[in-house]
Amino acid sequence: MALIVQKFGGTSVANTDKIKAVAQKVIKYQQEGNQMVVVLSAMSGETNRFVDMANDVQSIPDPREMDVLLSSGEQVTVALFSMAVKDEGFDSISLLGDQVKIITDNMHTKARIKSIHTELINKHLNDGKIVVVAGFQGVTEDKHITTLGRGGSDTTAVALAASLNADKCEIFTDVEGVFTTDPNICSAARKISRISYDEMLELASLGAKVLDIRSVGLAKRYKVPVHVRSTFTDSEGTWVVEEDKDMESMLVSGVAYSKNEARITISKVQDTPGVASKIFLPISDAGIVVDMIIQNTRAGELTDLTFTVPRTDYEKAMKIVQIVSKEIGAENVTGSDDIAKISIVGVGMRNHSGIATTMFHVLAREGINIKMISTSEIKVSCVIEEKYTELAVRSLHEAFALDKDNQPVVE
Amino acid sequence: MALIVQKFGGTSVANTDKIKAVAQKVIKYQQEGNQMVVVLSAMSGETNRFVDMANDVQSIPDPREMDVLLSSGEQVTVALFSMAVKDEGFDSISLLGDQVKIITDNMHTKARIKSIHTELINKHLNDGKIVVVAGFQGVTEDKHITTLGRGGSDTTAVALAASLNADKCEIFTDVEGVFTTDPNICSAARKISRISYDEMLELASLGAKVLDIRSVGLAKRYKVPVHVRSTFTDSEGTWVVEEDKDMESMLVSGVAYSKNEARITISKVQDTPGVASKIFLPISDAGIVVDMIIQNTRAGELTDLTFTVPRTDYEKAMKIVQIVSKEIGAENVTGSDDIAKISIVGVGMRNHSGIATTMFHVLAREGINIKMISTSEIKVSCVIEEKYTELAVRSLHEAFALDKDNQPVVE
Repeated sequence: MALIVQKFGGTSVANTDKIKAVAQKVIKYQQEGNQMVVVLSAMSGETNRFVDMANDVQSIPDPREMDVLLSSGEQVTVALFSMAVKDEGFDSISLLGDQVKIITDNMHTKARIKSIHTELINKHLNDGKIVVVAGFQGVTEDKHITTLGRGGSDTTAVALAASLNADKCEIFTDVEGVFTTDPNICSAARKISRISYDEMLELASLGAKVLDIRSVGLAKRYKVPVHVRSTFTDSEGTWVVEEDKDMESMLVSGVAYSKNEARITISKVQDTPGVASKIFLPISDAGIVVDMIIQNTRAGELTDLTFTVPRTDYEKAMKIVQIVSKEIGAENVTGSDDIAKISIVGVGMRNHSGIATTMFHVLAREGINIKMISTSEIKVSCVIEEKYTELAVRSLHEAFALDKDNQPVVE
Repeated sequence: MALIVQKFGGTSVANTDKIKAVAQKVIKYQQEGNQMVVVLSAMSGETNRFVDMANDVQSIPDPREMDVLLSSGEQVTVALFSMAVKDEGFDSISLLGDQVKIITDNMHTKARIKSIHTELINKHLNDGKIVVVAGFQGVTEDKHITTLGRGGSDTTAVALAASLNADKCEIFTDVEGVFTTDPNICSAARKISRISYDEMLELASLGAKVLDIRSVGLAKRYKVPVHVRSTFTDSEGTWVVEEDKDMESMLVSGVAYSKNEARITISKVQDTPGVASKIFLPISDAGIVVDMIIQNTRAGELTDLTFTVPRTDYEKAMKIVQIVSKEIGAENVTGSDDIAKISIVGVGMRNHSGIATTMFHVLAREGINIKMISTSEIKVSCVIEEKYTELAVRSLHEAFALDKDNQPVVE
């Protein structure tokens, strides 16, 4: 008898018909001899409706009250789901975050789980019930309701799977799994059957659409096998699991892209100790997260510093940097928000040289200028002009033969 | 400094604009030097929406899960309300039933309050906060969410006022108070300025529209002064308070009517011990609540037995009675569901004779036949044909001069 945690997102429980269909699906798994814990999101659209109402009544909605408001959405779906299970003649119980005791810190709207009490869930599982847990929500030690932020239901599911020592955690969504790249811009994109936690973390921009990235970190830490799959078919999706030999034989697992960044360059900065902190301290104080940072040494003591920030923070960052650059005597500040970041990801890179070179070659062949490069052990990212995004993705996808199940390994 | 509990119903918090307006109203009371506890219902329409969804997924919705579902409605309004208060620059906190610890029995969908913990509310009041409590909901000792049934938010408000030893409990609604009769059928109906708990209980059919009747019983027991008033004006409404001399000088406080009943007559029943229980036991076993029971003795040992049941239970009751009447050898069973119950209510009746006679005389004068009569210390009820309802109400209202603030006292 396996213990399975299944999470269904907002589109999977968008109305009562869908809730009934999902209940029948879960019952089938239980009938096959499994103990079932179900984690649900709010009906799709509800969270936006709540946010709109909150913005109506308070210019900057109070985070504590926002959590009280938002958490009501999952309360609706877990109650209806439990009813739907009972209507089919099976036993079920809904549990909210504070009933389970999903204890979090007190960072409202983006709380982190500190501990999960499993006694109550185990009791109900042993009674033969399908246990339906409200995703996305927790409670502080002193009983304030918290929420886990965007994608929080995935985190709830993986954290429950880890705490309950579940055999697997299945994330049901409206796509069939994780793809080698975005199928919307590359028709040759192929569903990945198995991917490592580390690759999934690097493929954030692909994965974020189907699987919250924090939950991947959690799954990695507790070695929870995660199965990302479609609510609306029975076919296998993508397994996010520990790295194995098969994965290593692949050069590249996927091509990711992000259009959410902007680039800022400070020219001719004095290359002296303390300059970097003078620039980045006011930026981080403003709550802006810097992604890539590249420093090109020029002749003498002057250097160029280029970095990327979220596109939504571009103007704010530019203002800060313009002030700072005068203080530190830099020559000038330039920037652009029409850039894209293209990344190739694969654990196979660890053992194969020449992957980055191939990437640069492919981009050059297509006439795409590389503006920034950054690498990690299993990833190469290039910043290019935004207009070349689709061309770059398709060219790289083809060059690394990602449309084929077994890529030729270039030694 | 007074402690005031104010309850706002679903129409008063139906959208974000109304929530903001109510928040400003409450802030004004606090600024006048009062400690404020606010009890809110769900937005009007939400409960029906939830019930519809529940009926979609389960033929008879599970009561425990129904309570999880329904209680999410107040969670939304208290969060938004608290935000609205903060947006005006004042401090506020929302508390759910389980956060306050409004402990109830485990009768889901119609739970009764067993105790209320006041520590947390008092702490926040002493911190200068407007404390916003979700109405209608509680929690069992073992942490299951419960709801208090229709009108439960009134009960929450009065129970909180009693527990907190509040100076008054104000029930804000969409009408101006309790009227001498239904203004929709009698244009001369007048707002009552003060009424006793006992009268209010008897005027259930008038009061139910503005004030849940269970909350009146609770107010009476704990001597909580209740002020029923309009959300949308600042004028005084109706005070429901302990009986005083002024009230006793009035003969009649109001005329109530109910079209929700049906009448069943069993003819020529053996008048022997045990017959009544043989008839009424299966009826109560079927969950049907009998209101009036009248037994007319005939010649010899045969009697006629007439009683009323809720109109929605009429057919079910008829079937039961037809079976029982055969068993006990009664002659036949007749009934009708086109009846109405007209009641006059007033504590003044205790000290004045002739009130009932006046009522019978007025009805006779209008050609209205009385089918059943029942009386209590402060009430006379007559069952008549439904079609005469409006005529009876208007005639009695006029006969007892209810349109005038100070009625002439008939000695």
